[in-house]
Amino acid sequence: MKSRLIAAFLIAAAAPALAQQPPAPMPVVPAQIAALRDAALQDNFAWDITEGLTTEVGPRLDGTPAEARAREWAVAKLRALGFSNVRVENFTITNWTRGAEDAEILAPFPQRLVVAALGNSASTGPSGITGEVVGFDTLGDLQAAPDSAVRGKIVFVSHAMPRTQDGSGYGYFGGPRRQGPTVASQKGALAIVIRSIGTDYHRNPHAGVQTFGTGVKPIPAGALSLPDAEQLQRILKRRKPVTMHLTLVSQSGPAPSGNVIAELPGRDPKLPPILVGGHLDSWDLGTGAIDDASGIAIATAAAKRIMDAGRPLRTIRVVWFGSEEMGLFGGLDYQKRHGSEPHYAMAESDFGAGKIWKVNTKLGKDRDAEARLLQAALAPLGIVPGKMDDADGSDIGPMIEAGAPGVGLSQDGTYYFDLHHTPDDTLDKIDLGDLRQNVAAWTAMLAVLSGGIEPEPKRKLRR
Amino acid sequence: MKSRLIAAFLIAAAAPALAQQPPAPMPVVPAQIAALRDAALQDNFAWDITEGLTTEVGPRLDGTPAEARAREWAVAKLRALGFSNVRVENFTITNWTRGAEDAEILAPFPQRLVVAALGNSASTGPSGITGEVVGFDTLGDLQAAPDSAVRGKIVFVSHAMPRTQDGSGYGYFGGPRRQGPTVASQKGALAIVIRSIGTDYHRNPHAGVQTFGTGVKPIPAGALSLPDAEQLQRILKRRKPVTMHLTLVSQSGPAPSGNVIAELPGRDPKLPPILVGGHLDSWDLGTGAIDDASGIAIATAAAKRIMDAGRPLRTIRVVWFGSEEMGLFGGLDYQKRHGSEPHYAMAESDFGAGKIWKVNTKLGKDRDAEARLLQAALAPLGIVPGKMDDADGSDIGPMIEAGAPGVGLSQDGTYYFDLHHTPDDTLDKIDLGDLRQNVAAWTAMLAVLSGGIEPEPKRKLRR
Repeated sequence: MKSRLIAAFLIAAAAPALAQQPPAPMPVVPAQIAALRDAALQDNFAWDITEGLTTEVGPRLDGTPAEARAREWAVAKLRALGFSNVRVENFTITNWTRGAEDAEILAPFPQRLVVAALGNSASTGPSGITGEVVGFDTLGDLQAAPDSAVRGKIVFVSHAMPRTQDGSGYGYFGGPRRQGPTVASQKGALAIVIRSIGTDYHRNPHAGVQTFGTGVKPIPAGALSLPDAEQLQRILKRRKPVTMHLTLVSQSGPAPSGNVIAELPGRDPKLPPILVGGHLDSWDLGTGAIDDASGIAIATAAAKRIMDAGRPLRTIRVVWFGSEEMGLFGGLDYQKRHGSEPHYAMAESDFGAGKIWKVNTKLGKDRDAEARLLQAALAPLGIVPGKMDDADGSDIGPMIEAGAPGVGLSQDGTYYFDLHHTPDDTLDKIDLGDLRQNVAAWTAMLAVLSGGIEPEPKRKLRR
Repeated sequence: MKSRLIAAFLIAAAAPALAQQPPAPMPVVPAQIAALRDAALQDNFAWDITEGLTTEVGPRLDGTPAEARAREWAVAKLRALGFSNVRVENFTITNWTRGAEDAEILAPFPQRLVVAALGNSASTGPSGITGEVVGFDTLGDLQAAPDSAVRGKIVFVSHAMPRTQDGSGYGYFGGPRRQGPTVASQKGALAIVIRSIGTDYHRNPHAGVQTFGTGVKPIPAGALSLPDAEQLQRILKRRKPVTMHLTLVSQSGPAPSGNVIAELPGRDPKLPPILVGGHLDSWDLGTGAIDDASGIAIATAAAKRIMDAGRPLRTIRVVWFGSEEMGLFGGLDYQKRHGSEPHYAMAESDFGAGKIWKVNTKLGKDRDAEARLLQAALAPLGIVPGKMDDADGSDIGPMIEAGAPGVGLSQDGTYYFDLHHTPDDTLDKIDLGDLRQNVAAWTAMLAVLSGGIEPEPKRKLRR
């Protein structure tokens, strides 16, 4: 054993000599940036914003009076924090709101299941509809089924999403929610219920938007919680006809929404601003704590910390987007108004309140040194350097696609889809330590991108 | 380091010599008992019963048609398993069933909270009631409050129960549910909502029974989920008047219930039977998987395993009690009918499906050897020998109190109150390995108490 161990040590020691190239030298992180980052690990601004918005407004679905109250709350809070040019940019959306909801198995084993309508579901009306349930294991199975197997029935798709750190399953496994209702309608289904696009086993369905294809007749579309979806699977496995009474009441119409914008003016107002933000609206079932009160709180707390440190060279623009959930309406309105103006960088926090574990950038080839400095500034927070030609975000996504420079601070999403769009998205799910790590990362990012922070003249005099 | 280590070993080795008495010799576990116990670690009967009852009946609240379907299911299942004398002992209860429920904060921060009525709550009627909320941290604070602080208001009590392995917090910290409504009514409250008696942070309230004191006017009484209770606390902390609209619809009336009883006849039918069981009814919000499908499944699977091994000396009587949740009605009916008949022992499984971690017995002084054999038979399953003058159970509790011999196989309750009486009490929460450990323990217990199992004459001939 001993001689084997020694051999292993010798091999390990020899490894660097075998590497083909020396590693690129790491940039030295300026002391100001490191100090701002480390001080942010004691941040309270982000918690204060998250706690305040989720308590004093609560759920704030797109285009509702609650979202309007959230805008009022936002304007007051951003002004109180000392931001400049605080304003609302209004726009109109077609909103959608839920009413009474129920799913009841009538036969062979009478019992109620927990269901929530998906966004843009047709309404069953208060008396509901009754139909035979036909089950499919995947969206592909539904697509492959003959119309005759589906016509007049309530379709059930049980496709299960796995748990991942980067949330990458949401695209593929979200298919039953995004395409399922359209496919079912095209085949003549009476309605559709899906297994929630989620990873938890609580009786809390996951809401989420879906949009019927052009010319496709809207049908009632709902999501069962995972325990209920698996119950329905077990019932279907008994191979007796299954009848369900489904009530999904909803209404829809034109409604006001808006983006709330605030600024920390830079020393050189002619330079393109750095845009940071998240979205103000939330799904209606929870209080939108991790989606996305914490996101706007993280971005705003970081900007506030820069404000309190002095004046950045570049303007930092904070945007609390409206009506993200129902179709990125806030991001699209911002793009329509401001998309042609240059931005120095854009970053959005909208993947919960878990620790940041990776940083991707897409700042352009000529800004590699800046990207590497950002990587070095973030590494002490346990953040892995990622790609340098990639960034994303929900509201800012279309603008990044269109060429705007971006930074993606990726949060750990291992538990995100336990809570996403459910009643369980509430304040108690947020870990203060994780939230502070986010603020520290965002503060470091802003410090790197800001062009340097100088003490305010007034403050200088006081010292 | 080395010499210190050696010294530590020497001290450890010397420890037994320092003990004041030699330990009592451990009983040798007969091979038949050990073999039955170990084979039960591969049991499928308990899973089959739990899966079947929760799927094919689902929720089965006391005195409802669902509980009646559960009795039919039970009779068919117990007969199919080969039990004898399968029968229902009918009785009548006053049942209580819930209708529409909602709690909405109207001011200062409009939003809906998740609420469920407690058993025997008065009905608000479908249009609900509106009142100012007055909050108390504990039941004691409510008791100490002057009537004038409570009269005409909606009382909120936020008393929080800690997580424990033995579930011992449920007595003390369950006070707000059991006594809160009566105290609030006596002080003239319009209604009461409590923080759920639970330990999880999901938007799933914990139901549970409460009974208004004699002469006390029933008022609407509900439980908020923990996230909602903490939200209400945060709102109250803002020190603005809080107005709530509360809807808790319910109805009550006489309804049929019953105990389902089955037997594995012993070789000597004149000997007192061993009673094992759990309760068939469940709260309405979940499918009663851990409360108490798994309990009846564990007790019944163990009896079935004895049946398949041969014929015990003593009769094993399996009882699936009805209407436990609303007031131990099944246990009291059994006591009325059979309480004066001698029983060799009673044991009930009604604390979830977590691993058994301790065994208590109350078999009487003259049966110490039997109790010690039971301890020795269970120890290999990781079960700690507990008290020898203590046993409990819900339905059997009054009979144990009255002197019937009992065995208490204590399940690990660390996570029990995450699920107890909530919508989350569903099949997916049960761990098959834990369930099988329970069956192994119950099988070992029955093997010890049975007086010996002999092969059936028929089977003997076949061999």
